[in-house]
Amino acid sequence: MTSEREIGVTELALRDAHQSLMATRMAMEDMVDACADIDKAGYWSVECWGGATFDACIRFLNEDPWERLRTFRKLLPNSRLQMLLRGQNLLGYRHYGDDVVDHFVEKAAENGMDVFRVFDALNDPRNLEHAMAAVKKTGKHAQGTVCYTTSPLHTVEGYVKLAKQLQDMGADSIALKDMAALLKPQPAYDIVKAIKEETGMQVNVHCHSTTGVTLVSLMKAIEGGADVVDTAISSMSLGPGHNPTESLQEMLEGTGFVADLDKTLLNNIKHHFAEVKPRYAKFMSSYTVDTAIFDSQIPGGMISNMESQLKQQGAGDKLTEVLEEVPRVRKDAGYPPLVTPSSQIVGTQAVFNVLMGRYKVLTAEFADLMLGYYGLTIGEMNPEIIAKAKEQTGKEPITDRPADHIEPEWDNLRAEAEKVEGFDGSDEDILTYAMFPKVAPGFFKTRPEGPKNVGQDPAEIEAEKAAKAGDTGTGPVRSPIKYEITLNGHKHSVAVKPA
Amino acid sequence: MTSEREIGVTELALRDAHQSLMATRMAMEDMVDACADIDKAGYWSVECWGGATFDACIRFLNEDPWERLRTFRKLLPNSRLQMLLRGQNLLGYRHYGDDVVDHFVEKAAENGMDVFRVFDALNDPRNLEHAMAAVKKTGKHAQGTVCYTTSPLHTVEGYVKLAKQLQDMGADSIALKDMAALLKPQPAYDIVKAIKEETGMQVNVHCHSTTGVTLVSLMKAIEGGADVVDTAISSMSLGPGHNPTESLQEMLEGTGFVADLDKTLLNNIKHHFAEVKPRYAKFMSSYTVDTAIFDSQIPGGMISNMESQLKQQGAGDKLTEVLEEVPRVRKDAGYPPLVTPSSQIVGTQAVFNVLMGRYKVLTAEFADLMLGYYGLTIGEMNPEIIAKAKEQTGKEPITDRPADHIEPEWDNLRAEAEKVEGFDGSDEDILTYAMFPKVAPGFFKTRPEGPKNVGQDPAEIEAEKAAKAGDTGTGPVRSPIKYEITLNGHKHSVAVKPA
Repeated sequence: MTSEREIGVTELALRDAHQSLMATRMAMEDMVDACADIDKAGYWSVECWGGATFDACIRFLNEDPWERLRTFRKLLPNSRLQMLLRGQNLLGYRHYGDDVVDHFVEKAAENGMDVFRVFDALNDPRNLEHAMAAVKKTGKHAQGTVCYTTSPLHTVEGYVKLAKQLQDMGADSIALKDMAALLKPQPAYDIVKAIKEETGMQVNVHCHSTTGVTLVSLMKAIEGGADVVDTAISSMSLGPGHNPTESLQEMLEGTGFVADLDKTLLNNIKHHFAEVKPRYAKFMSSYTVDTAIFDSQIPGGMISNMESQLKQQGAGDKLTEVLEEVPRVRKDAGYPPLVTPSSQIVGTQAVFNVLMGRYKVLTAEFADLMLGYYGLTIGEMNPEIIAKAKEQTGKEPITDRPADHIEPEWDNLRAEAEKVEGFDGSDEDILTYAMFPKVAPGFFKTRPEGPKNVGQDPAEIEAEKAAKAGDTGTGPVRSPIKYEITLNGHKHSVAVKPA
Repeated sequence: MTSEREIGVTELALRDAHQSLMATRMAMEDMVDACADIDKAGYWSVECWGGATFDACIRFLNEDPWERLRTFRKLLPNSRLQMLLRGQNLLGYRHYGDDVVDHFVEKAAENGMDVFRVFDALNDPRNLEHAMAAVKKTGKHAQGTVCYTTSPLHTVEGYVKLAKQLQDMGADSIALKDMAALLKPQPAYDIVKAIKEETGMQVNVHCHSTTGVTLVSLMKAIEGGADVVDTAISSMSLGPGHNPTESLQEMLEGTGFVADLDKTLLNNIKHHFAEVKPRYAKFMSSYTVDTAIFDSQIPGGMISNMESQLKQQGAGDKLTEVLEEVPRVRKDAGYPPLVTPSSQIVGTQAVFNVLMGRYKVLTAEFADLMLGYYGLTIGEMNPEIIAKAKEQTGKEPITDRPADHIEPEWDNLRAEAEKVEGFDGSDEDILTYAMFPKVAPGFFKTRPEGPKNVGQDPAEIEAEKAAKAGDTGTGPVRSPIKYEITLNGHKHSVAVKPA
């Protein structure tokens, strides 16, 4: 056996793991005590920001996401901090003007971010190029991302082509991102090997574990040449989350590859989160392995969304029809990967098609998708639906870069933000407002009250369940419960506690 | 790519999966409706009997295990039925006379068993040879088993040697059994490849999933030449159980290997057990991935056993000392694999050593182990402890086959069984009595009442939890709760119900 090749590991516990397992609800205070160990364990990078965490911070946790970033920077002085950035969408749900992208990346870098993983839901490189350039300007690590999906049109060659385009943009590394756990071992090997051969670049691989196969895919990706893989500490792993860090390390023994992580520290990190996790039980996803997505192409989260949309319309029995409609809609849209926001756009249109007749009504977002305002998809879009989109919206289809249609907007955003109560005058606050203009005002107002931990003591959760099971509807059993009782013929209202 | 090599799959849902995940409590009536689909799905075999199921049937389910076997035979007419047999221990916890082994195997075959997976906790081939011969005599499939463990003495060569010994006994196939999820991908590849090369036999691989790495090990075992692998349908998989059947099948796509199972039927089977599983929530193991065993060598179940032993002695704080003592005791005993019953024997002696001083008192079982009455271990045993065992028990050490010291016992067992109320006169009942002489009489008496389903409606389980969470100690919240309340200065004892 020749000397071992070292495989880097990105720890996901502080971001994607709790985003995937517990609806991004973990409070900063439940993470701080793990940071010293994480900082010393030997990770290639620590993903801790971006994705849905920014949104969750201001929407649910009354926590300033920029302050969270600065805290991580202090607590992880020796680590590469990593974030997930939705290209021209940044951390919001629309395309931003290039000037906003510049400001965002600059401020993220200034507050401590090292590695920017930049992706686009449609794999349209034009939606990445400005963000990538902005990262390069800061001197930080720009990681260009290839989103993995399957369709009759997606090929190894296509992924390699995209990787090369990212390389031409100046990417410091390439990420292969498998957000739906669709990446099987053989394609993992083939794609990583081809990208390595054609670009010679560092390749990072990110897989979810929903379908149960992706630790094998990581093994094969490593055999194919992957340099860094993403995992989550075991107590924050599996289900819709990711493969366990410790299992990845152990699996490599004797294979000629090694993940040089400190086992004692991993054990500490594991125990920390094993203690914290039960506090978030009420946000937890179920831990089912599900391979159905290999055939349906529909991520689990998307199915539950569509199900609730149908129920709201009193059409809960139409789910099967909708599930059959999704692949047709996806095909008409040129086979976009199904990931935020394309999964919602395609899913909602499928629901509309079933409830109101095929393409009788287009959602505004689906019309925009068909008209090119989200970018290009890999396949040809159905020209009839494009015509309908044009007719319904009065908008013209575009084929150039969507953000070229957006005027500079930084000055406007500043002016708007300045009118908001609680705005602190910083560029960071302008960016917070820009990302979530409806949520930010409420957050700015309540910010002085400080972060809110939505985790709960497990006993408290049990008590709530108990109360529900008991149908008292009066809240946790441990607090006094009000009863109306009749004693000696007289009605009394009393509050009682278990003796 | 050359044509694909077909990989057989053994489905574990009906035996080891519920044994590992829900303490072997699944009632036959919760399995029958899945059988038609299982029978047609294309499995190499269906494990459905043996292991702890026999014990659980008569101890907890008031169900005749022989009737269960006959029912499976009827419901799975096209399948190879498979069982796990503990060599000379059969399904009990001691060595039996050869005549009992003969009768047991004959009756199991007669009632419908096809594949006998025969193993010994110490990997002592002399503990397998009679059972293997008995299977050969019936014309059924005799699968010789190599138990996987790690120690300074366990090598690929050693496993191959054992496989060859099993081949010489007439084994129809070799099973590599990884009961503690210790088998990492590289050794899986190396061992399977070497056994295939040296024996040319069919190799079956059985892994648990506790450590999170073993689906990768199955991939590597298949690359090394494995013919059949064991999995459990996804809704009955993972945690201390096994890797998901569907994930195994999907993982192979494009690799040159294929598991030819019917996906629609797998989906039916999955849904069946997904519905049944919540009924057994109160027996369920937690779903934590745990890689600690790679270093400690101590299976999770063994730790919880030792912990409860220590607590009973008011020495709950001594667990760390005991965990450190286990590897020493294991070494003194010549590095047995830690699996039933050796894990209990070694673990209990470690507890004794910590509580009373090292080897001040030997348990009867540990003394027997040191004196050779369980068979040979791979390493040399500590001669000082052998001397102590001799002194304490007055027994002589043996080096020949343990069962050679057991007289024929069938006639005695028949005579004893005949005195038991409810004994039905059959050889099967004699065998039931022989396996569990303390439990069988109670079972024979209550057998006419028919099987008992210990599963519970999930709502019922919630209500029980609710009652506990409310700390009332008076049963489910829905029944009246007694409170002592003070009203207008007077104490009253009242029973109240939610209004």
